[in-house]
Amino acid sequence: MDTIGVGLIGTGYMGKCHALAWTGVKAVFGDKPAVRRVALCEVEESLARRRADEFGFETSTSDWRSLVANPEVDVVSITTPNAWHAPMAVAALEAGKHVWCEKPMAPALADAERMAAAARVSGRVAILGYNYIQSPAIRYVAKLLERRAIGPVTHFRIEMDEDYMADAEAPFSWKSEKSAGYGALDDFAVHPTSLVSTLFGLPAEAFGEMRKPYPDRPDGASRRPVENFDVATVLLRMPNGASGAIQVSRCAWGRKGRLQLQIFGAKGAILFDQERFNEVSVYLAQGSAEDQGFRTVLMGPAHPPYERFIVAPGHQMGFNDLKIIEAHELLNRITGKPSLAIDFDTGLAIERVIHAAARSATDGRWVATA
Amino acid sequence: MDTIGVGLIGTGYMGKCHALAWTGVKAVFGDKPAVRRVALCEVEESLARRRADEFGFETSTSDWRSLVANPEVDVVSITTPNAWHAPMAVAALEAGKHVWCEKPMAPALADAERMAAAARVSGRVAILGYNYIQSPAIRYVAKLLERRAIGPVTHFRIEMDEDYMADAEAPFSWKSEKSAGYGALDDFAVHPTSLVSTLFGLPAEAFGEMRKPYPDRPDGASRRPVENFDVATVLLRMPNGASGAIQVSRCAWGRKGRLQLQIFGAKGAILFDQERFNEVSVYLAQGSAEDQGFRTVLMGPAHPPYERFIVAPGHQMGFNDLKIIEAHELLNRITGKPSLAIDFDTGLAIERVIHAAARSATDGRWVATA
Amino acid sequence: MDTIGVGLIGTGYMGKCHALAWTGVKAVFGDKPAVRRVALCEVEESLARRRADEFGFETSTSDWRSLVANPEVDVVSITTPNAWHAPMAVAALEAGKHVWCEKPMAPALADAERMAAAARVSGRVAILGYNYIQSPAIRYVAKLLERRAIGPVTHFRIEMDEDYMADAEAPFSWKSEKSAGYGALDDFAVHPTSLVSTLFGLPAEAFGEMRKPYPDRPDGASRRPVENFDVATVLLRMPNGASGAIQVSRCAWGRKGRLQLQIFGAKGAILFDQERFNEVSVYLAQGSAEDQGFRTVLMGPAHPPYERFIVAPGHQMGFNDLKIIEAHELLNRITGKPSLAIDFDTGLAIERVIHAAARSATDGRWVATA
Amino acid sequence: MDTIGVGLIGTGYMGKCHALAWTGVKAVFGDKPAVRRVALCEVEESLARRRADEFGFETSTSDWRSLVANPEVDVVSITTPNAWHAPMAVAALEAGKHVWCEKPMAPALADAERMAAAARVSGRVAILGYNYIQSPAIRYVAKLLERRAIGPVTHFRIEMDEDYMADAEAPFSWKSEKSAGYGALDDFAVHPTSLVSTLFGLPAEAFGEMRKPYPDRPDGASRRPVENFDVATVLLRMPNGASGAIQVSRCAWGRKGRLQLQIFGAKGAILFDQERFNEVSVYLAQGSAEDQGFRTVLMGPAHPPYERFIVAPGHQMGFNDLKIIEAHELLNRITGKPSLAIDFDTGLAIERVIHAAARSATDGRWVATA
Repeated sequence: MDTIGVGLIGTGYMGKCHALAWTGVKAVFGDKPAVRRVALCEVEESLARRRADEFGFETSTSDWRSLVANPEVDVVSITTPNAWHAPMAVAALEAGKHVWCEKPMAPALADAERMAAAARVSGRVAILGYNYIQSPAIRYVAKLLERRAIGPVTHFRIEMDEDYMADAEAPFSWKSEKSAGYGALDDFAVHPTSLVSTLFGLPAEAFGEMRKPYPDRPDGASRRPVENFDVATVLLRMPNGASGAIQVSRCAWGRKGRLQLQIFGAKGAILFDQERFNEVSVYLAQGSAEDQGFRTVLMGPAHPPYERFIVAPGHQMGFNDLKIIEAHELLNRITGKPSLAIDFDTGLAIERVIHAAARSATDGRWVATA
Repeated sequence: MDTIGVGLIGTGYMGKCHALAWTGVKAVFGDKPAVRRVALCEVEESLARRRADEFGFETSTSDWRSLVANPEVDVVSITTPNAWHAPMAVAALEAGKHVWCEKPMAPALADAERMAAAARVSGRVAILGYNYIQSPAIRYVAKLLERRAIGPVTHFRIEMDEDYMADAEAPFSWKSEKSAGYGALDDFAVHPTSLVSTLFGLPAEAFGEMRKPYPDRPDGASRRPVENFDVATVLLRMPNGASGAIQVSRCAWGRKGRLQLQIFGAKGAILFDQERFNEVSVYLAQGSAEDQGFRTVLMGPAHPPYERFIVAPGHQMGFNDLKIIEAHELLNRITGKPSLAIDFDTGLAIERVIHAAARSATDGRWVATA
Repeated sequence: MDTIGVGLIGTGYMGKCHALAWTGVKAVFGDKPAVRRVALCEVEESLARRRADEFGFETSTSDWRSLVANPEVDVVSITTPNAWHAPMAVAALEAGKHVWCEKPMAPALADAERMAAAARVSGRVAILGYNYIQSPAIRYVAKLLERRAIGPVTHFRIEMDEDYMADAEAPFSWKSEKSAGYGALDDFAVHPTSLVSTLFGLPAEAFGEMRKPYPDRPDGASRRPVENFDVATVLLRMPNGASGAIQVSRCAWGRKGRLQLQIFGAKGAILFDQERFNEVSVYLAQGSAEDQGFRTVLMGPAHPPYERFIVAPGHQMGFNDLKIIEAHELLNRITGKPSLAIDFDTGLAIERVIHAAARSATDGRWVATA
Repeated sequence: MDTIGVGLIGTGYMGKCHALAWTGVKAVFGDKPAVRRVALCEVEESLARRRADEFGFETSTSDWRSLVANPEVDVVSITTPNAWHAPMAVAALEAGKHVWCEKPMAPALADAERMAAAARVSGRVAILGYNYIQSPAIRYVAKLLERRAIGPVTHFRIEMDEDYMADAEAPFSWKSEKSAGYGALDDFAVHPTSLVSTLFGLPAEAFGEMRKPYPDRPDGASRRPVENFDVATVLLRMPNGASGAIQVSRCAWGRKGRLQLQIFGAKGAILFDQERFNEVSVYLAQGSAEDQGFRTVLMGPAHPPYERFIVAPGHQMGFNDLKIIEAHELLNRITGKPSLAIDFDTGLAIERVIHAAARSATDGRWVATA
């Protein structure tokens, strides 16, 4: 296989990220096969054409089913709103395509299960766009844990906060409707849970709490009650006795893309924040007390795959680079090489945790996640 | 009253802090009445003598009851282990003394209730050593909240972590016995709760979770099961609909005196960490988006009572200075002036929250705190 | 013009950055004309072929003169060692090509002058790869200065430090030979000077000091004297009375890509560090003293051209993105649009400052820069 | 000697700091002899009385000569404006008293020389109030250097900045008169030079540059030219070939008590900033590249004399605590114990560096400091 044909559905926020990833991956990694940007789909024909031109795709369409059926397309990027993930992913897998689908899988657990089943049956590669696990920093954290640098993990805390819904007087939008999901829990908490899953394994039990910072929002001349929860907390119990907490908010003024990680082990601690994702802080309980402290390690060529992007240390990778790494890992998996990615089965397990937390929040008691 | 006579019981960690506070308070604040360091009590006679000399107390004793009975003593500092707080405080109050007692009040709720009752009956001033509420930084935070700078508070998170029990191989000590209390919950969480009480008011409901990072510890040649919990989390629901979380650990490698506060409101956010307690960060959702960010305010003469210590900004106050402020606030209260301090009634309410959280942790469900 | 043909000479550190920039620029900016990657040159034929495949160039060669002569090539990226810049740039310009040349222009001032003259004669666009001026952060700083947010600038300090030559026992290399230039002064100080030129204008006078942290380095079994200077300081006097300092070191252990900027004005201050180049800190002497502090602004869609890369704030841009912006600015200039870039004339002025500083260091007195 | 009698001249900014130091030193350090606060002098009789009461001094006077003559006084604290240091210190030494004098010694070098000569003749202890060298952090830095943790020092940079004169529209004051000295150079640069002297030894040559950010200031209805320099830079060459730079400004908006130190050695680097003086950052070029970074060490009981103030780590010392340490070191010296302090001879050497830098600034060339 000299080239691999790519189809892209959706060209919004994540759609552009996928487009840039497909554009850059070979130049960064020297990957084989080379990527052919075959087909792009947008809801509106003329927009599809414009984006295809901008993003360098050979053809465009407003009919996603035709893209999925296109025999030149080997792998389909799905970056549409969440409700579309299941039908598109299942159709693509049934058509024998590999799938790179944005997270979360689907608002309803049944749909996520259908997606995972379709992936299993298809024998194709099906992964989710959990980009945060791909950074050199998180890989370095994983390596530190594997090396047992901080001993066994005893406790962790993860916070993910943004402020895009923090304005109490922003008009009521579909994001606050019940049909949009639980709120911050499925919108955000899947990311921390992807880190938990990657770094520590899946939790055994969850306790959830969901809150409405603003009970209602302006809706024309009156106000409309908010139907889901902009703040959520999930306590986790791990099978091995460790414990953790995930706290998420989309009303956290000042937080723009925070995803803070605190990991405590029997011999040290690790800190990380996505808002400064080129840095990892490590505390090792070693040596003289007078010399101990958190060491801030700046990512560089010693932290793969940083060196594929820049050969000099301290030059910083960007968010879009993470998507390039994801595309590379997907190609690795397709070509049978070792690969780091969250596939549909693991993605399903992550969503089970989320649904368990939501159930727990309703019931006010601990709930098993499996 | 030209002078006020002070008696100090205990000269360990907090005992020395009280001694330094009594020594320095007049020179810092120019307070009237002047402090007379009358009597000091330690368990061992010769140590008591030595400390009295060092700390400038006129007399020493190994009999705390005689100190409490001393007619020259107007106010008693109690800095002994927690189990001694109740008998000493009650005796001092019954002898007509004012009391400055280290927190928490007592391991058993019944004892704390007895202390609060004794204070009420006595008509004397009885306060607890919650020093963290006294810093210029926390006073500035309180002022920001009063000014509604960040609008109504919707959510807060407080973490208090140290690592003094983080070494898994440190020998089993009395700190890990059931009789020492719940563990991190009463050892640490009273501090965050004192901040909650001071800044936001008392919570209505609590959910607790307590964990053992290390199930056992070395005990001679074998290992002994740990009987209480070095990690705890408390979720809080406030009467007005706001929510919060308190997370504490005494096994958090690298954390030395961390007490981090995140406060989110409808119009902004405030951050604070006791490890850098001369700084407060404030985010205001005002002006152009391009100019918004967290503003780190360094404490200075504009933040009382900093200016009593140093007239130039940016010169940093220390932990011991907080105890001097506490002593000053106690003198204010005794002399009928406005005063910021946590008295025994509020202290009792704080401990009710702690006990409710512990009960919740056992029962696995939300518990009312009052 | 529907497409523009690009030739790339050199595929090392900066060569790959150029390749990635040419690959991604259209997908990021939707630029017209589209970029055609026509020809790539490397010293060794087979490496040239491999890189052309990886980077998506249509043809490869080991003869840079043939690349420069290629009629399909409209613009030439020059990323070879500094000594090659002058012959290649001059040849390209004489062949009617636009030029994007890495900085600095040339070790010898006469060569830089020849390049600038060739550019002027050619009527073509000739810019230098000063990437640090292209970030949203530095553009935001420039905008703040234009808005007079901090009033007139009175004083600035810029430090640029790395540690790639900090190891005293690293073997003697060509970098330490006199023929390689002054050392840190031309290697690093051109970057700070590019910021000075962009933000404050050109200085009137310079005072230089150059130092050898290690007088000799291992060379086989013996040691060889170091011939140039790994540490340099340049004091600057601006025509309007403001003053500044540039400090550079390539032996600064722990510094990986530091480029710290402190700007003081009559009404405030601005801080920036390239190691965290998605952040700018601003202090405005406004409002109550109790509320003043440095505000850390995280780059986002409000800071162009961030929004072309990611639509959500706080997601971080990377170093390679800066090169994409540069390529975009070059295309803007070629197509006659407003553009931010350092052309050969400004580049020459920057190098005059460097040479003046070096002369000053030798003479031990202030030197005029023009 | 059971007690030592103290006289304090001046009760402003530094006067209160001395008073607090004398009040607290025994309780903190358990020092022998005990301090007797014998006499206090202020210009105005009634203020002297009030301060004596507040600060716990036995007697008060408005006649400094009588204080100096008082046979009960063994040591004299001099905290008056700089012009008074020389007559008071010389008189005190001639009267056989030990002296603790605030820095700098005197505006004129001749006066400083006179003070040093008087100290030498007297055989008494005479030290200067260079408090920044006394912190646990700076002592830890000194210890790291002694341990050769970062190898031999090759280069250092020190910045000291405040903003108390940053307001361009603040009225002209005596601080801007020529008679007040060079400006920032003698006002601030003595502190960095005290660190240089303590940590690296005295420099051999200096190059100075002094600047006026605001050429004039409001003076009633008109404006008056500023006569000295609010910004200064001093480049230093050390006898052993190392180099350094000192940069100071009293017009640096946003800087409140910044005193930043960067030390680069052949095997690592050390960072420190007085605005967070309970922290030291250390980079050691050891171990795997992937694990290297700056380690931020929080001061604690492992960093003497922190443990005399608080027994728990991470609790922060304050500025006033540094003065207590100074008083303790002075007592140590008086009682013949090892002691860290800058005596009049070293203080004189520091001022010679300052005067050399000023001369260099006038002459525009390097000047020898000795």
